[in-house]
Amino acid sequence: MPYVAPVKDMLFVMHRLAGLAQVAALPGFEDASPDTAQAVLEQAAQFAGAVVAPLNQPADRDPGAWHDGHVRTAAGFREALRQYADAGWQGMSHPVAYGGQGLPGLVAAPCAEMLNAANLSFALCPLLTNGAIEALLAAGSPELRSRYLEPLIAGRWTGTMNLTEPQAGSDLALLRARAEPAGDGSYRIRATKIFITYGEHDLAENIVHLVLARLPGAPGGIRGLSLFLVPKFLPDAAGAPGPRNDVHCVSIEHKLGIKASPTATMQFGDAGGAVGYLVGQENHGLDAMFVMMNAARFAVGLQGVAIAERAYQRARAYAAERVQSRPVDGSSRQAVPIVEHPDVRRMLGVMRALGEAGRALAYCTAAHADHAHAAPDPAERARHQAIHAFLVPIVKGWCTEMSIEVASLGIQVHGGMGYIEETGAAQYYRDARILTIYEGTTAIQANDLVGRKTLRDGGAVARGLMAEIRQTEALLETRAEPAAQRMLDPLRQGREALGEAVDFVLAHAAGHPNAIHGAAVPYLMLAGTVLAGWQMARALLASLDTPEDPAFHQAKIATAQCYALHRLTQAPGLAAVVLGSIDYAVQP
Amino acid sequence: MPYVAPVKDMLFVMHRLAGLAQVAALPGFEDASPDTAQAVLEQAAQFAGAVVAPLNQPADRDPGAWHDGHVRTAAGFREALRQYADAGWQGMSHPVAYGGQGLPGLVAAPCAEMLNAANLSFALCPLLTNGAIEALLAAGSPELRSRYLEPLIAGRWTGTMNLTEPQAGSDLALLRARAEPAGDGSYRIRATKIFITYGEHDLAENIVHLVLARLPGAPGGIRGLSLFLVPKFLPDAAGAPGPRNDVHCVSIEHKLGIKASPTATMQFGDAGGAVGYLVGQENHGLDAMFVMMNAARFAVGLQGVAIAERAYQRARAYAAERVQSRPVDGSSRQAVPIVEHPDVRRMLGVMRALGEAGRALAYCTAAHADHAHAAPDPAERARHQAIHAFLVPIVKGWCTEMSIEVASLGIQVHGGMGYIEETGAAQYYRDARILTIYEGTTAIQANDLVGRKTLRDGGAVARGLMAEIRQTEALLETRAEPAAQRMLDPLRQGREALGEAVDFVLAHAAGHPNAIHGAAVPYLMLAGTVLAGWQMARALLASLDTPEDPAFHQAKIATAQCYALHRLTQAPGLAAVVLGSIDYAVQP
Repeated sequence: MPYVAPVKDMLFVMHRLAGLAQVAALPGFEDASPDTAQAVLEQAAQFAGAVVAPLNQPADRDPGAWHDGHVRTAAGFREALRQYADAGWQGMSHPVAYGGQGLPGLVAAPCAEMLNAANLSFALCPLLTNGAIEALLAAGSPELRSRYLEPLIAGRWTGTMNLTEPQAGSDLALLRARAEPAGDGSYRIRATKIFITYGEHDLAENIVHLVLARLPGAPGGIRGLSLFLVPKFLPDAAGAPGPRNDVHCVSIEHKLGIKASPTATMQFGDAGGAVGYLVGQENHGLDAMFVMMNAARFAVGLQGVAIAERAYQRARAYAAERVQSRPVDGSSRQAVPIVEHPDVRRMLGVMRALGEAGRALAYCTAAHADHAHAAPDPAERARHQAIHAFLVPIVKGWCTEMSIEVASLGIQVHGGMGYIEETGAAQYYRDARILTIYEGTTAIQANDLVGRKTLRDGGAVARGLMAEIRQTEALLETRAEPAAQRMLDPLRQGREALGEAVDFVLAHAAGHPNAIHGAAVPYLMLAGTVLAGWQMARALLASLDTPEDPAFHQAKIATAQCYALHRLTQAPGLAAVVLGSIDYAVQP
Repeated sequence: MPYVAPVKDMLFVMHRLAGLAQVAALPGFEDASPDTAQAVLEQAAQFAGAVVAPLNQPADRDPGAWHDGHVRTAAGFREALRQYADAGWQGMSHPVAYGGQGLPGLVAAPCAEMLNAANLSFALCPLLTNGAIEALLAAGSPELRSRYLEPLIAGRWTGTMNLTEPQAGSDLALLRARAEPAGDGSYRIRATKIFITYGEHDLAENIVHLVLARLPGAPGGIRGLSLFLVPKFLPDAAGAPGPRNDVHCVSIEHKLGIKASPTATMQFGDAGGAVGYLVGQENHGLDAMFVMMNAARFAVGLQGVAIAERAYQRARAYAAERVQSRPVDGSSRQAVPIVEHPDVRRMLGVMRALGEAGRALAYCTAAHADHAHAAPDPAERARHQAIHAFLVPIVKGWCTEMSIEVASLGIQVHGGMGYIEETGAAQYYRDARILTIYEGTTAIQANDLVGRKTLRDGGAVARGLMAEIRQTEALLETRAEPAAQRMLDPLRQGREALGEAVDFVLAHAAGHPNAIHGAAVPYLMLAGTVLAGWQMARALLASLDTPEDPAFHQAKIATAQCYALHRLTQAPGLAAVVLGSIDYAVQP
């Protein structure tokens, strides 16, 4: 089953919803013209579809293996990553000064979506490398930057994030990893780290581990963590990989999905100490790590959009060819393709609506990051940064939760065939299941949304977004088209429900922390439901005004209605959970 | 991770919600005294926990294999099935006349739940055998009954259902299997059947296949199907397995889950024709098959309850031991077991509430079947039969859909560990995913609920159930306890929402068949949400009146509230989907 990137929808979202023109008007993003953006997307679509997607199912079946500290990756991955690097994809959004192309995140986002849709396991390697690049750009010393950024951005070396330890997953305060100054400016790291994605592999010349550890005398908890760069091979004077460092992969996990991405247990310092270099300031490791994690959280949200699209494409293709049962309306005496049956239409419609809504939400979030990065006016930068920070946990949480539902519906559309591994639908269901867990579970995202993103500013960003939704409602009110009228009520009810939930959280978080945090995930799902629905309403309005591609825009208008009916109608119920959280008991 | 059957909750549901005393008062069920029921459940719990549950995870890892027409099943299955048969479990609810114990379905249901919770793959074998027994009891000739029922009920032989063919899954009208009279009263069957659960195995002396096929000259479509019994080994004069019949397993599937239950492709008649015997009348094969399918559909709904319980037990145990992060309310400066964190409590609470609500719904449905079977008054039998028929698609559809959600939450509670196969939580997520597909997808159940169960009687049964819910509301109104008051509003809103949906379906199904069938699954989920919630309201009332086991009853009261908050509040949103189904577009 081929993957065909939905370039038309991606460009529609970029232009009409995320404001590509405004992003391209920002200093430094002048290259992101409509023509360039389209050309980049078409090249990315070609690469993802022709090179990476065909490896996906074979790699699931034969994901490679660990042997004696080495990891053999799945067939074709090495050559595909070489092509990815050679074409410059790893550096597309990174600074020109280090060999990147400096394109905005809004252009990088669809390319990342495509790579993930083609092959979630493969795409994790560049995803983690991007995280390491972000951390070094944010906090690395000039020397570390000059030594490591060029090969990472060129895609010759790859990066990892080493946070988790057996006793410390969501709770980084429990980390035990140790770092000691070696006297020469470097450090010796001793740690056992688990769940390290691409912690070991045979795809690149070198692996750059970013490791959280504690210096001697550092405080306990998260305020005593420092970040270290630990290369697998220590670069020589010329910057080429030299001696092997004291870091080793002792095993890889047997996982439900994303099987072809090796998940390593890494042992640092068994032979005296791995050589590491401090990134940023002592005891401020989390600052740099949060830069990395925020980039990674957004990227994982995009993974959700990606796997939803892939699952939808496969299910739609199957439904178009599988013939079964007569139409329920009596319009034919013959069995028809199942795509004509109402419940299959519902499932495909919901899959499509969730995927397109998630895409719109994610790309708009990417545009906010571009403005936050490059807007000339500091106040504008701060405004966009605040909105971006509010949206990241929602993109991460909501887009990944919906992706599991979409992948599950994808199996259901296939009926019994969906349960057979060879069909391929089951792989998406298995692969998607990690997305609500890694880079912070949905609960971690939801606590972030409640604590740092809603309470800290007194709900200012949340209310600002709701004011924008009201403007969209006002536009819908001016339209006579029935589709606009049908969108209006669910959107208004959704926005009002979100408003009630925001007010409730603000009023009661201090007095009832357990209740409010117990409602944090429903609160996040409510926010995602409404904000993604808002983007679908904007898409509907844009499509009403764009008659030049009737098939595309009619489909978008119908998809927006489907979203309104199946999702925005659920917003009051989610708000009810939040509003009842203090009064109602829970029995674990 | 051991499985400990929730015998206390099962007995509570049997006694207080499903009316075991009334069932035991029916003619023929006098043995089902409270003491007997408890003793039976405790023996079943012992067997499931000690013998069957330990085989579950090893069998997933090494599920056996096909070789040259033979299927080697997973380690331990053969001995476990022998013990199951020897203890008489296969026959517990079957007629004494054929060696069974004649216990009511209400007593058999918890035992089936336990077996499935212990090991879904293993339990499928007795489940299918029950189906074959039901079909023979309903439609088999005296000769077929006398020859086949005793060894099936004794558990020495097993049964299968052979419906699906490559081109005919949900749509039985497309079946191509052929049967020709042999002139001696037997028939020769030629067919390729796929997805045959336990179609071949090494667990029993003989396998009794029940096969849908067409006689020469039979009409096309489902009115031309006849049912045939095709034994793997033809019984000799003494009834012992004799010559090998012309039926062979040509392969088994590589599935997402329930890996240790062989899913066979069966070839009938490659060497001239498999010997088969007509069950019931010519061209009336579906009548007997529906008896079998209805029993199997209810049993699959119970599988959903079972896997939800198992997933909950594992997640709860992990949450009690995994220490991570300080409490959000500041009550401790140390990290605490994650069961104390609000979102983990929410997830476990929802898992528990869904499982207990599903159990109550399923057992009450079983009790209706007992009354339908054994009530002396024909009008009473008919009344219970109608309610039972209404509830079966809901038990099948709702309990299985919720089981996927519960299994997914079970992974989420484990965090990253949930994604590692060795943990075991992932198996439930994989296993559960078949339940909404086999024995009729959720859409098939929903179409049945709309068509045969709601429209055909003009909503009479549905409205009767809603009148009963109103009585429960009236009881809640008389109670001063805050828990009762908190239950009341969500239950009333849910019942009103269901009422609106029933009225809408009745009013518009004829005029808008596509829209109504496109809303059939949300309609089923709404009905399940409200009817299961009603049982939780009844459980709450019963617990308020039962102070003798405070821990159990306080937990039940809290669980009922959790259900009300997290599920009954969603009923209006589900109804909104039904009510908008005509106006809103869907884009597949």
